[in-house]
Amino acid sequence: MKLFWIAVWTWILVLEGLLLLTSSHPVHSDERNAALMRNCTAKPPYVPSNIVNTTVRLNALRNLMDGHNISVYVIPATDPHLSEYISPRYARRAWMTGFNGSAGIAVVSMTNAVLWTDGRYWIQAERQMDCNWELNRGETTIVNWILQQTKEGEIIAADPFLFSVDLWISYEKALVQGKRQFVSKESNLVDIIWGEERPPEPTDNIFKIPSEFLGRTWQEKVKEIRAEMKNNLYQPTALLISALDESAWLFNLRGNDIPYNPFFESYTLLTADWIRLFVNESRLPPDIKEYLNAHCTTAECVQLKPYDQIQQNVEEYAKGNVTIWIGQEYTTYSVYKVIPESKLVIDKYSPVQISKATKDATEQKGMKRAHVRDAVAVISYLVWLEKTIPKGTETELSGAHYLNKLRSEQNHSKGPSFETISASGLNAALAHYSPNEENQRKLTPDEMYLVDSGGQYLDGTTDITRTIHWGTPTDFQKEAYTRVLMGQIDTARSIFPARTKGDSLDVWARHSLWEVGLNYRHGTGHGIGSFLGVHEWPVGIGSGQTWLLDEGMFTSIEPGYYEDNEFGIRIEDIVMVVKADTKHMFGGIPYLTFEHVSLVPYERKLIDLSILNEQQIHWLNNYYNKIWKIVSPELYAQNLMEEYNWLQKHTQLFSHSAFVTFSFPLLVGVLLGNLILQGKLQ
Amino acid sequence: MKLFWIAVWTWILVLEGLLLLTSSHPVHSDERNAALMRNCTAKPPYVPSNIVNTTVRLNALRNLMDGHNISVYVIPATDPHLSEYISPRYARRAWMTGFNGSAGIAVVSMTNAVLWTDGRYWIQAERQMDCNWELNRGETTIVNWILQQTKEGEIIAADPFLFSVDLWISYEKALVQGKRQFVSKESNLVDIIWGEERPPEPTDNIFKIPSEFLGRTWQEKVKEIRAEMKNNLYQPTALLISALDESAWLFNLRGNDIPYNPFFESYTLLTADWIRLFVNESRLPPDIKEYLNAHCTTAECVQLKPYDQIQQNVEEYAKGNVTIWIGQEYTTYSVYKVIPESKLVIDKYSPVQISKATKDATEQKGMKRAHVRDAVAVISYLVWLEKTIPKGTETELSGAHYLNKLRSEQNHSKGPSFETISASGLNAALAHYSPNEENQRKLTPDEMYLVDSGGQYLDGTTDITRTIHWGTPTDFQKEAYTRVLMGQIDTARSIFPARTKGDSLDVWARHSLWEVGLNYRHGTGHGIGSFLGVHEWPVGIGSGQTWLLDEGMFTSIEPGYYEDNEFGIRIEDIVMVVKADTKHMFGGIPYLTFEHVSLVPYERKLIDLSILNEQQIHWLNNYYNKIWKIVSPELYAQNLMEEYNWLQKHTQLFSHSAFVTFSFPLLVGVLLGNLILQGKLQ
Repeated sequence: MKLFWIAVWTWILVLEGLLLLTSSHPVHSDERNAALMRNCTAKPPYVPSNIVNTTVRLNALRNLMDGHNISVYVIPATDPHLSEYISPRYARRAWMTGFNGSAGIAVVSMTNAVLWTDGRYWIQAERQMDCNWELNRGETTIVNWILQQTKEGEIIAADPFLFSVDLWISYEKALVQGKRQFVSKESNLVDIIWGEERPPEPTDNIFKIPSEFLGRTWQEKVKEIRAEMKNNLYQPTALLISALDESAWLFNLRGNDIPYNPFFESYTLLTADWIRLFVNESRLPPDIKEYLNAHCTTAECVQLKPYDQIQQNVEEYAKGNVTIWIGQEYTTYSVYKVIPESKLVIDKYSPVQISKATKDATEQKGMKRAHVRDAVAVISYLVWLEKTIPKGTETELSGAHYLNKLRSEQNHSKGPSFETISASGLNAALAHYSPNEENQRKLTPDEMYLVDSGGQYLDGTTDITRTIHWGTPTDFQKEAYTRVLMGQIDTARSIFPARTKGDSLDVWARHSLWEVGLNYRHGTGHGIGSFLGVHEWPVGIGSGQTWLLDEGMFTSIEPGYYEDNEFGIRIEDIVMVVKADTKHMFGGIPYLTFEHVSLVPYERKLIDLSILNEQQIHWLNNYYNKIWKIVSPELYAQNLMEEYNWLQKHTQLFSHSAFVTFSFPLLVGVLLGNLILQGKLQ
Repeated sequence: MKLFWIAVWTWILVLEGLLLLTSSHPVHSDERNAALMRNCTAKPPYVPSNIVNTTVRLNALRNLMDGHNISVYVIPATDPHLSEYISPRYARRAWMTGFNGSAGIAVVSMTNAVLWTDGRYWIQAERQMDCNWELNRGETTIVNWILQQTKEGEIIAADPFLFSVDLWISYEKALVQGKRQFVSKESNLVDIIWGEERPPEPTDNIFKIPSEFLGRTWQEKVKEIRAEMKNNLYQPTALLISALDESAWLFNLRGNDIPYNPFFESYTLLTADWIRLFVNESRLPPDIKEYLNAHCTTAECVQLKPYDQIQQNVEEYAKGNVTIWIGQEYTTYSVYKVIPESKLVIDKYSPVQISKATKDATEQKGMKRAHVRDAVAVISYLVWLEKTIPKGTETELSGAHYLNKLRSEQNHSKGPSFETISASGLNAALAHYSPNEENQRKLTPDEMYLVDSGGQYLDGTTDITRTIHWGTPTDFQKEAYTRVLMGQIDTARSIFPARTKGDSLDVWARHSLWEVGLNYRHGTGHGIGSFLGVHEWPVGIGSGQTWLLDEGMFTSIEPGYYEDNEFGIRIEDIVMVVKADTKHMFGGIPYLTFEHVSLVPYERKLIDLSILNEQQIHWLNNYYNKIWKIVSPELYAQNLMEEYNWLQKHTQLFSHSAFVTFSFPLLVGVLLGNLILQGKLQ
């Protein structure tokens, strides 16, 4: 017994020694990471050389603020349509701070400059901002911070074109309660100091979706929306459409104003008697004007009005005996404030936003077809990576470029649907990292690699994430990956009554992680447009997405796990809400489930089959059968035989653990039987 | 082949004949049910004889409305503290309508009288209201109905003491938007016509909780709440406490004003310098005044003020340079409207409500002990039922009385914590049905029986539901019961990060039902007080309960299934939120799970083991071990040997299906082995 303990202790010491020897690798990676991050508490402060110095622009802004007697100026990251992705000319917060993540608000006082952004961007912010900027990780809310920094009577100002109605009112309420003034400054202060360097207005042509990809004409859609107006209890006389994807959807038109999003700058004001489209008219070629019946003014004609007249036009219209319906979520305070309260009908989302959420049969077919071609591009990329990585020649950026190229070669491609996230090793722990020349890593079999990308196609929009390992993953990496996959599968398999809130299903994506004390800090799924935005609300799953799921809606499912400074895992697929086949139908309503639309196999090497249950393995095998059945003919048709063979190998079925459960005792039984007959046990 | 089809058709015809023959039973039960329900479309309308005729009181109300030029009068079911259970003197809606369910709002116009209530009460409302009243099943919202019934300029009135701030504002906003007037009438119109018959104000003594059951003195609690006030960013100078359980909790005092709820009518106004308790002083015996230091006026003394001076006193205090903190959820519009907006600090829940949600170590111990004694009462009831039912002598009501008696015999009992729901057969489909002399059913082995009951004890509050069958359940009943049980188990087993919203866990309770197209129309769980309200918000699980779960909170888990006109199933237990033992701890926060505090076995006969998974059976066996270990000594100590033996039998463990999975192939293997050796297969 004493010998046993000596042996145990010897082993522990040996293992500790080994750990010390191998720990040089993490230290090295910490140092590398440190070089990429600012260190404002160091003396002198350390700021990586690639970071923009914001001293001059901050001084200029403060001078302007001083001139207007403004104590605090708030700079949101959005545009006058509250778009998630914005055209570079609206990237005021990025220009001011250096931080170019899609979410986050900057606030500048005469002495402090602070950025608020959510968890997925904290590391990125530390890598992109200089020491003029402080990062607030949620320690205080913006409004509370402002209250702490100012005295009663002081002026806080912001651009009302960049605030949703709700957000403006919440700021106003809290600030007025604290006896501060919250002032609407329509000429944006950042634009003034940005000056000539600010990117110009877009001028390129707006185009029409080919009719083969359309289930409904714009006239039919207008008719449907007018019916919604008529059915509304408050009998609105007009509907104001603010979000860019709403006007694009309604008129079956697209543009190129925003990178990755086929939108064009516009508003629509719709009544029973006329339609006004606020847009830069010079961007409409004659055939599009014809298509819109722009030359008449009756109910079925689209009157063209200058884009920048929206506020004034709405204000004028609101003087009549009218009621204007708006969707609170995408209408800015600038337009809201010119309508008297008694003439407003407010819903969270406009009826266009809601109609758009359910795809019609043609859109569903298009989305599915686009995803097959998209799978071909992603599979080709995975095959190429597998061959190329061992050579050590590729980087995050070169990989992303190659994937974008593969997508662009597919039919009906209109480019990527967002900036490709190609992230190796610790970079993947930044949930929405995109590589650039300075921070990118080499792709290597020693690290896990995460690629989150999507395409715009004339018939649909795609979005998919795969996490790969070309070498030998650790047990922890395998466990985390498998549990993320379990989240994907359990959410996909879930059955729920029609009109269940997306929120309710969030736990399916997380519970296998929670079980062992793991989690991720982002939502589980977002709606997606049909050749529109890659993030399309209000459909979604997870915190704050409270819309009711119904047949024909599309959402992503994208659980993940991120180990800071080590690795990142995310598995993202697009699914469609479909009817489930249930024995009963309590409440007389259909019960629903999800159908996978993304069609790319997962990383076999990272799946630990032993922690999957029967149902999960069964689902996985069904999914692999489906991928093979649908994608292999397309690979064959495109003459991609290497990819065809790769797919065959990577969609091989997993053996059920039932087989193991059954065969082991069977074997024991056979042996026992033999022994019994041989008399050895009798 | 032709013969085959003839055989099939013959069988179908035979089966149809059998169905016709056996269908007499449902017809009979439909008729019984019909006799209990009003039928306002029959000619003449049918109204069961036990139903109150509301014609006279409705006429009187309409006369009063006419005199005040009121077009519509709104009658909520609550009291001036927005209590869920109310003293009979506040049961104005019940008195007006005849419907005595706990939830629902009545609205009276000059021509119509309508009740809104939620799904669990629809059948009950049809059984209790005469044909003067219409039942709205959610076809329109109250406000939209009022807008449809009235014209611009007309007056809608209500008692501001019966509206939460939010509810009043939502009515006001919509009605004013529709150009109606929403008027606050502080003298309640129903009280005027109720007159002398209205129950009088309570006069019985307020009492103190014995110190052995207290973890903190009231002085310590006041200190904690004052610290919260000091930590609040807006630096409120006072806290207004409106909910009855808040003052009761803060001062460790209890009363008997409300059936089943140990509350007393009061408000508290708390500042750093003094404490004012608004209460009928004559109800405080000298020792309680002494205990409260009611004879001084410094910071540690409780000044007693007349109960009905709260509005006036707050209004006066609000004239100073002060800020008053209120919890929006339990403050009525009557008190809110006397405080200028700039002097308000509003949170959804007051800090007392939040502090109270987490039970201290003494309260946790008390809750657990109370549940052991409560289990003794419930188990004794189940044993008694098992013996008595075959005699055919017992009814829903006699059963409920017997159970109440059993509870009252337990130590520290202070009566039931709500009206016992004792419901057999189709009555159990009314989720919150309570029996009375007229509508009650006999208890019989032919029907399922649901009993939902709880007790108040000096050391805690309990709430438990069991569903039983003394005869032979149908396969569908077994399936539904088992799936409800799976919901109970899966919720209880779930692991989640600290401060997860209760809402997020709702899917655990429902998914096994959803899987086969079943569901239930109520929430999954509610918080519970410690010798306070049996429903204590904001803790809970399910639709709308968005509070964050933390260690030491208590909630019910109560999935169910209700087949209208047939049967009802609910399984309800109280659980405590405890730390889970997870391998990792992502985010540096604890991961949590639930510990069962209710300790009564489920109905063995209704469990279909074949649809439970390994983990569920494992959980069930652990739970049964725990029940036996904790409850059997108490049964023994109380010398309840019959119950002791019953419990032993009813907590026997279930066999794991793994055993089946393993033993079957083992047996096959042995046989195969024998055959092989015997050369039969070689």
